[in-house]
Amino acid sequence: MKELFQVALISTGGTIEKTYDAHAGILSNKASVLEVMLGSLQLDGVEITHFSLMDKDSLEMSPDDHAEIAVKVFECAKTFDGIIVVHGTDTLSETGECIVSLQPSIEVPCVITGAMRPWIMKNTDALQNIVESFSVVKLLQAGVYVAMHNRVLKFPGVVKDTENLRFIKKES
Amino acid sequence: MKELFQVALISTGGTIEKTYDAHAGILSNKASVLEVMLGSLQLDGVEITHFSLMDKDSLEMSPDDHAEIAVKVFECAKTFDGIIVVHGTDTLSETGECIVSLQPSIEVPCVITGAMRPWIMKNTDALQNIVESFSVVKLLQAGVYVAMHNRVLKFPGVVKDTENLRFIKKES
Amino acid sequence: MKELFQVALISTGGTIEKTYDAHAGILSNKASVLEVMLGSLQLDGVEITHFSLMDKDSLEMSPDDHAEIAVKVFECAKTFDGIIVVHGTDTLSETGECIVSLQPSIEVPCVITGAMRPWIMKNTDALQNIVESFSVVKLLQAGVYVAMHNRVLKFPGVVKDTENLRFIKKES
Amino acid sequence: MKELFQVALISTGGTIEKTYDAHAGILSNKASVLEVMLGSLQLDGVEITHFSLMDKDSLEMSPDDHAEIAVKVFECAKTFDGIIVVHGTDTLSETGECIVSLQPSIEVPCVITGAMRPWIMKNTDALQNIVESFSVVKLLQAGVYVAMHNRVLKFPGVVKDTENLRFIKKES
Repeated sequence: MKELFQVALISTGGTIEKTYDAHAGILSNKASVLEVMLGSLQLDGVEITHFSLMDKDSLEMSPDDHAEIAVKVFECAKTFDGIIVVHGTDTLSETGECIVSLQPSIEVPCVITGAMRPWIMKNTDALQNIVESFSVVKLLQAGVYVAMHNRVLKFPGVVKDTENLRFIKKES
Repeated sequence: MKELFQVALISTGGTIEKTYDAHAGILSNKASVLEVMLGSLQLDGVEITHFSLMDKDSLEMSPDDHAEIAVKVFECAKTFDGIIVVHGTDTLSETGECIVSLQPSIEVPCVITGAMRPWIMKNTDALQNIVESFSVVKLLQAGVYVAMHNRVLKFPGVVKDTENLRFIKKES
Repeated sequence: MKELFQVALISTGGTIEKTYDAHAGILSNKASVLEVMLGSLQLDGVEITHFSLMDKDSLEMSPDDHAEIAVKVFECAKTFDGIIVVHGTDTLSETGECIVSLQPSIEVPCVITGAMRPWIMKNTDALQNIVESFSVVKLLQAGVYVAMHNRVLKFPGVVKDTENLRFIKKES
Repeated sequence: MKELFQVALISTGGTIEKTYDAHAGILSNKASVLEVMLGSLQLDGVEITHFSLMDKDSLEMSPDDHAEIAVKVFECAKTFDGIIVVHGTDTLSETGECIVSLQPSIEVPCVITGAMRPWIMKNTDALQNIVESFSVVKLLQAGVYVAMHNRVLKFPGVVKDTENLRFIKKES
């Protein structure tokens, strides 16, 4: 059998990984649930290397954070067949634009994804978006994309439609 | 077969019914999930009449709200075999004390319950507490109780232990 | 705080613990899921000692098996405050009758429970029945009972109503 | 916004749709759960037309059944952008081979999928496989494929590896 498709999974925090703090009655980013999610899936077609880069609500990300993610993506692009970045949706676009502006021609597909409803919620979209990302990263051409809710959009020019809670291509 | 045990289910809101607002990224009390919870259970031994009295975070309840719940409890005590009150945990004790101070000798068992983690969370304690309440309301003697996490405590003298997220009998 | 209520939990197999064998496409009793169920609950009011007595589909239980369970129940009745037996529903009544015929006056409450739909199913009744058993075992008087679907029935004279998938008192 | 990708979803039964018959204690194909599954997903990028062609355990499919599915696929290929067939895994390969042998050059991508563990099980792979199918059907070139467990394989020459419960390319 041929070698498995090598995926670098870069986690940065965000809603997808939020858990519930019963004391405070709020949602916080205290524990990574990405490993639990992966454990519930059967991903025979890929070999995953997980990099826990940071654990931030994306609203609290600085320009330096976006750049740090981009640098990690470039590093991974040298040795992996594809890259998945798990990211809060509020500034997901900033990271996507940062990657394509710093290095317009990336060598492999880089898929950024996240969730509107955390994994710990029964009606989460986290698992769907993770599954989609692992599916499309193997089929897409080199480039930077957001994958979510059965849509794949290519950077640059992607923004969050905060009213409809989805990503769209910016009108040019 | 003998007549079913008649339960008045009085809902008032609280964590147990909180849902997730993806826009704001917070938990709110917008929709009652109690009916969904009941639909997932098989409660052959009771006949339930559901009174949606209010839909409040219990931190926002006024003394008038506690009294309104107590009055509804007294009304139901006249015609039902048992009463279950679904209540936010933060001021659950205030409502319990209000009931026993206004009418020390209630005619039927009245079980107050709630949840530390909302039903919409995968690790919720809501379903457990609802099941427990329906079990013990049929076996307890007349009186006012909180039932949660396999503990049943009788009012007066019950307080929330906010550090350990449970109810305890107040030291006298 | 007073000492915790001591529960002996005797597991014997049955539908409640059935898992899905993807190779054969059928349900079998290969792994105990009782520990996983208990882990998902918050049972602050009891201290549980788990005895894995056997792991059988109750249809395959012999008279010796029912007697073995009864003997274990009598042994536990000497040192525990209450007993819960997890049992397949098809011959649950045989075990209940066996216990009360061998020793009509047991010293503590003994609650037998099970499930019509295994825990591994999304629509299982296993968790509900386990929660109910832990609730009622603390409130019932000494005796042998089946607890399921918000009904508690006392042996002798309990049979499975296979048409309606519940337990009922035998017409006398 | 451009028109949505039009998907024909052809359901035929199989493990993915099996529910649990509490009376018989077995799994059967009595109700379609596909609609429930779709309802739990957010599929913004496609417009789905669902054809309930048959509801069979694939072991019970005859050559006529495989041909009937193939004919439906050819019909849909004329008007849809992509096709997803939900199928039992035991004879999924027969249907795939039937399609490519009857019409070697189909005009659109046709993705056949299924599940090793039914949706009603907590550890089902059904949802993952459905999500994957909707993701890859939009990216694949015309042809007939099986998509499951993060693998996409093109017919002809795909067989079920019954030992490892997955699909593989036949050695030539």
